[in-house]
Amino acid sequence: MTDFYGVENHGPYEIFDLGDFPLEEGGVIRGCKLAYAAFGHLSATKDNAILVTTWYSGTSKIMEKVFIGPGRPLDPESYFIIVVNNLGNGISSSPHNSPAPACGPRFPRVRIGDDVRAQHRLITEKFGIERLALVVGGSMGAQQTWEWAVRFPDMVARAAPIAGTSKNTEHDFLFAETLIETITSDPAWEDGFYTKASDVHRGLMRHAKVWGVMGWSTEFYRQGRPKALGFPTLEDFVTSFMFGYFGPMDPNNLLCMAWKWQHGDVSRNTGGDLAAALGRITAKTVVLPISHDMIFPISDCEAEHKLTPNSTLEVLNSIDGHLALQGLDNSMMTQLDRALFELLSASA
Amino acid sequence: MTDFYGVENHGPYEIFDLGDFPLEEGGVIRGCKLAYAAFGHLSATKDNAILVTTWYSGTSKIMEKVFIGPGRPLDPESYFIIVVNNLGNGISSSPHNSPAPACGPRFPRVRIGDDVRAQHRLITEKFGIERLALVVGGSMGAQQTWEWAVRFPDMVARAAPIAGTSKNTEHDFLFAETLIETITSDPAWEDGFYTKASDVHRGLMRHAKVWGVMGWSTEFYRQGRPKALGFPTLEDFVTSFMFGYFGPMDPNNLLCMAWKWQHGDVSRNTGGDLAAALGRITAKTVVLPISHDMIFPISDCEAEHKLTPNSTLEVLNSIDGHLALQGLDNSMMTQLDRALFELLSASA
Repeated sequence: MTDFYGVENHGPYEIFDLGDFPLEEGGVIRGCKLAYAAFGHLSATKDNAILVTTWYSGTSKIMEKVFIGPGRPLDPESYFIIVVNNLGNGISSSPHNSPAPACGPRFPRVRIGDDVRAQHRLITEKFGIERLALVVGGSMGAQQTWEWAVRFPDMVARAAPIAGTSKNTEHDFLFAETLIETITSDPAWEDGFYTKASDVHRGLMRHAKVWGVMGWSTEFYRQGRPKALGFPTLEDFVTSFMFGYFGPMDPNNLLCMAWKWQHGDVSRNTGGDLAAALGRITAKTVVLPISHDMIFPISDCEAEHKLTPNSTLEVLNSIDGHLALQGLDNSMMTQLDRALFELLSASA
Repeated sequence: MTDFYGVENHGPYEIFDLGDFPLEEGGVIRGCKLAYAAFGHLSATKDNAILVTTWYSGTSKIMEKVFIGPGRPLDPESYFIIVVNNLGNGISSSPHNSPAPACGPRFPRVRIGDDVRAQHRLITEKFGIERLALVVGGSMGAQQTWEWAVRFPDMVARAAPIAGTSKNTEHDFLFAETLIETITSDPAWEDGFYTKASDVHRGLMRHAKVWGVMGWSTEFYRQGRPKALGFPTLEDFVTSFMFGYFGPMDPNNLLCMAWKWQHGDVSRNTGGDLAAALGRITAKTVVLPISHDMIFPISDCEAEHKLTPNSTLEVLNSIDGHLALQGLDNSMMTQLDRALFELLSASA
């Protein structure tokens, strides 16, 4: 058991107890805990709530750093901002922090729809919120954003899915598969029954390298961004940044999230009809792909935008590619803030 | 020892015996064999010779299918076309076909420069050719094309590097590293001392999947190309096409080529100065990136084009991405043929 996921790194956060939470795949998480961090104050009319979802490996702490701050669109002075850790991310109920017997590789399969239903209970039961001013998230957080807008259209006034799709593509499925296999191919993984997460360090290092290939962009490397960010060699960048980020994580947590990511698909709500699913959306939506994203390219996002009523498409420009979500490209963050300001100021 | 590499699959070809061939990394291939296939007839003035190089895993047979034919630019009626198998590809001297003791994982490190020096001996000693009308190749074959143009500028009248760079990029290095590790992470690999190549099938399957992610493009999948090519599901495409292609290959051969690919760099000829290296080129050169190539994107190729005197850039359009090199996109092949016709008809 690692303490990487402790409050020191990722807190403070609150826990919402869902009790025994049934899952779409048929399983159940007993005593399911949803960890969330809230910022600002809910207005008397409860009309100023923003939900921020989390990406693969992301927790409420990094979302706070990337999205929230005074003078920014997600300003706690104006909004009540709830960041919810996705199931499996290591903070909410996850393979590594669940009690026996349903822990580790025995933790049940979780879907994006489960995340959204769990978040819905938090939003309604805990806070009594009937409508969210905005749901926003990147990557797997975008999957949750899309799912919210399709599943609970009346509750989502505005939606901003960043660098992520509502239905996982074949290419994305295969990419996630290669990530999964970096870990499961490590003999130390032992079908998930490793003694310590760090025993799987070879697999986690390969996982970090595959992210190094697909997470950024060819331009990111060609223009020497690793060096500009303080990593003098490619090897140092891979070790100190990529493995530094992913290395401390729990393999079963990552695998739980990877499966969820692979199977994200809002058309499950409409018998497999994606156009019908996206056609349900009433939220004012801005679809925000990142220009150099190798995982969720503009074209994949644009195709979904075209199926979404009341949506616009804005391409965020960054050679950081998908991992521009980490917030290291100030210019793109400025563009993102401007887009979110605009969305929040629009009537919806 | 597999018979995948036999004459039935990859012949006919001739063997040029290089004797003991010293390598740039300091090793030597004893009794080094260069396998080549020749088409057409060398003119009396020896001015109609075209050299075709081979890519990672590629052999003379697939180059013949992709590039050569009556009525096409590489027409044996007009040209004497020599396709040379790169060292390590399984047809020329390679880990799997070399005699003990320097076989398998003990096979020495080979560089792109070694390929080109070996090919130079074939061209000059065997055929007495002093100048090549054209050197053309894709991917690792482009690396050899670039190396030819830099190393022997007086011998290369025209050069057509397709979907490959003269100096390997950091991104490309890291991508090749993830390919290498799909194989070396397989316990059956046994540091290269496997009993049969097929024992490493788990690693080879992962290798095929990573190629599935980076080799094609997101558009290739989004537009349903796998199905159009006769593979009804993603799983069938990965198994029947990708693993079907790479699965029969020898892991040590692939690793030999992967290392060579990672370390390709024409600036080794000029003390690390890429501009100086490319500045040496006198060949009329057309740089041919593929529009949707995730490995060698337009921008990386364009940067080298700008450093190359007497060069033009033409983007080949194909959603097949890098593996459009396989020749499955007829429209791109027509475009390629037109570009090569134009290059061959230009005075040089």
